[in-house]
Amino acid sequence: MSDAAVFTGRAAVRAGILVTGTEVLTGIINDRNGPWLSERLLDLGVDVAMIEVVGDRPEDLLTALEQMTAAGVAVIVTSGGLGPTADDLTAEIVGRFCGREMVLDRALEARIGEILKPALQRWPDADREALRAANRKQAVIPSGATVLAPRGTAPGLVVPPAARGAGPTVVVLPGPPSELQPMWEDAVASEAFQAAIFGATTYRREVMRLFGLPEAEIANTLRGADAAGLRLAPLEITTCLRRSEIEVVTRFEPDAQADYDALLSFIAERHGEKLFSRDGSTIDEQVAAVLLGDHETIGVAESCTGGLLAARLTERPGSSEYVIGGAVVYSNWAKSDLVGVDPELIAAHGAVSTEVARALADGARARFDVSVGVGITGIAGPGGGTPEKPVGLVCFSVTYGRQGAEPAVRSLTRSSRLPGDRAAVRDRATTVAMHLVVRVLHGESD
Amino acid sequence: MSDAAVFTGRAAVRAGILVTGTEVLTGIINDRNGPWLSERLLDLGVDVAMIEVVGDRPEDLLTALEQMTAAGVAVIVTSGGLGPTADDLTAEIVGRFCGREMVLDRALEARIGEILKPALQRWPDADREALRAANRKQAVIPSGATVLAPRGTAPGLVVPPAARGAGPTVVVLPGPPSELQPMWEDAVASEAFQAAIFGATTYRREVMRLFGLPEAEIANTLRGADAAGLRLAPLEITTCLRRSEIEVVTRFEPDAQADYDALLSFIAERHGEKLFSRDGSTIDEQVAAVLLGDHETIGVAESCTGGLLAARLTERPGSSEYVIGGAVVYSNWAKSDLVGVDPELIAAHGAVSTEVARALADGARARFDVSVGVGITGIAGPGGGTPEKPVGLVCFSVTYGRQGAEPAVRSLTRSSRLPGDRAAVRDRATTVAMHLVVRVLHGESD
Repeated sequence: MSDAAVFTGRAAVRAGILVTGTEVLTGIINDRNGPWLSERLLDLGVDVAMIEVVGDRPEDLLTALEQMTAAGVAVIVTSGGLGPTADDLTAEIVGRFCGREMVLDRALEARIGEILKPALQRWPDADREALRAANRKQAVIPSGATVLAPRGTAPGLVVPPAARGAGPTVVVLPGPPSELQPMWEDAVASEAFQAAIFGATTYRREVMRLFGLPEAEIANTLRGADAAGLRLAPLEITTCLRRSEIEVVTRFEPDAQADYDALLSFIAERHGEKLFSRDGSTIDEQVAAVLLGDHETIGVAESCTGGLLAARLTERPGSSEYVIGGAVVYSNWAKSDLVGVDPELIAAHGAVSTEVARALADGARARFDVSVGVGITGIAGPGGGTPEKPVGLVCFSVTYGRQGAEPAVRSLTRSSRLPGDRAAVRDRATTVAMHLVVRVLHGESD
Repeated sequence: MSDAAVFTGRAAVRAGILVTGTEVLTGIINDRNGPWLSERLLDLGVDVAMIEVVGDRPEDLLTALEQMTAAGVAVIVTSGGLGPTADDLTAEIVGRFCGREMVLDRALEARIGEILKPALQRWPDADREALRAANRKQAVIPSGATVLAPRGTAPGLVVPPAARGAGPTVVVLPGPPSELQPMWEDAVASEAFQAAIFGATTYRREVMRLFGLPEAEIANTLRGADAAGLRLAPLEITTCLRRSEIEVVTRFEPDAQADYDALLSFIAERHGEKLFSRDGSTIDEQVAAVLLGDHETIGVAESCTGGLLAARLTERPGSSEYVIGGAVVYSNWAKSDLVGVDPELIAAHGAVSTEVARALADGARARFDVSVGVGITGIAGPGGGTPEKPVGLVCFSVTYGRQGAEPAVRSLTRSSRLPGDRAAVRDRATTVAMHLVVRVLHGESD
């Protein structure tokens, strides 16, 4: 995996992230907490040394805590293992590791009892006594720990070492991201956490995004910037290909702002409109902003993406302001019946053609009586490819005009051969369409 | 996170997984390799002790290799850090760790040269000399390592310790999952790998899936099975909530098959039709199988899910056999205009109502001239909720009849209050709809 980190700034304070749970270790569920916590810690100027996943074996947990300590971390953040069952034992192991005895917190026990009431009503058949006993367990915590208010039933903890400087401070958080994430701010605000990260440098973090060039080109550009005499040393630059776009993340200390600004100008000059985001905004945010700002409305007619573009457009709260509807026209019959594509056009050019993409876009605009119409038709594979029209070929059209059936005043129609498997082709096709929407609304036209 | 592992069988052979890359450690991209490798190793009877993510610092890589060795692993599998840039240094560090010098493999260099030719043609502006020099680096490998043929440009490696028994065997794989996964079988087949895992027990792995009950109920059921005298000790059982379904994964040695069969019968008896999959098949596979097997066709009209159900139905290759089309009817106007929902029905009951869901299902059936129609309408949030119709309320209908406009002969119409945020409500709604489709096609009706 290529990674154009030119320089890696080093903060004095390092942290380790310890994700626990046999279901994560065995691949049954994917960890989302490690990456999320890593970004948060970096924003605080804390350098993450490692993310480690272990199962529910007490000795593996303890070994991981000890090895992270040996690697010199000042903070360890754990996720998971705070549930009511016997194999949820993170709190106890962390207590032992920090040299603190376990005590029942009666106020916390009462609080968890309150939280459980609605659940007991929702599942009247559940074994109440077993649930109550199990959840008393969740109120047994290391003495001297700061309690973080539960978002589900499990409280979080900030556990300092028994003697100041005797080891890292451990932040203990629950596994479900919906509980862990809102608890994080409380953890950061705690006195014990602030003491542990004292001295960390706060970094600025800026993101730019490019579309329509290979990732290797960015590495070339950075070499060019270096050769042109730009000061890159104070900048920690990471590049990454994400949903067909290149994301360039730069972290720097506040006094390197001028160096970052110079780099941004250099990249803007070299790559022009391919740098579509200077402020980190995503193409999804840009589509939403321009549709809302210009009071435009949008409708789509999609074939190979099968609903993914409509789903992406409606992912955002409030999208009903501008998304009127979509047609998933998987069959040729649906293309004609739903959005009025002339069957003779399909017969003449084939369902996967720029002509049909254009007819889908205009058809969507008319059908939904909207100002922006999008048409997508392609071959997602793995079957259905031919030498002339191989798997991965996708045709796009975005047309713009006054509401509904009037002729388009602007349009962009393209075909592209997208790499990857069926899922990748479908996902990338939605990204291409999103970019075409913004470009048409910014005034471009064929 | 609760985890009902009742018993954890221990194989003699343990492994560690080491994922490298600053872009993974800093949360810019999510690791998919750790969980995937973990499942593969478990299937080989190798017990994964930990998954660790570290950045591109040589000392952190080396420390992780040493600490895993100290934890007693016989095999370490690494992913990432095999690219052409200077910070890709996994091969070199592993060579040093295994006590093996680095040598240029000229045959491998030539092979990588061949692989690069098409890429050089595709991006004619790229700096050829820099690319060639960078990729020679990828052909420098530890002496005595087994080379795994590149799928991208990076070869994989199996590196045994310099002296037999002196440490773990290290399998070095590239970061992109599309390269790592096809390389895995070659790694497993290598003599060095087989020697390292010699003695591991091969497990069977069975999966059942349940829908429509809380996760805690499964823990109760397992306690009940234990109380009823079933032998659970030979079974390693893990339960997990995934997309609103409960997945129960059981691993066992082949001679415990009868114990697993008894458990399966016990769960089937206690939970009846809520156990929708005894063979690990997913609801998506079941929907596809029943539609294909019965030569049925399907069309959907969805509001709050905004295209996600159509996208899920068309995720599978060959789905054009039975998916005719979908309507994303985000506005009331689209509900009436596209699939013919009577505006007075919307006025009388509200857009989010079982009545409108039913009209959407029948409308989709008529509109797309299909035998199965699905309607979904709900409040995904975060806005739009009222005391009577709160955020998370979703109404579903699936109707079945002869093609098209004839009245339905069977139908299931439901409303449900789904937990979670906007994305969770939308995703869960598609799962509920998938289950209703299978139930209607299996003959159920209101």
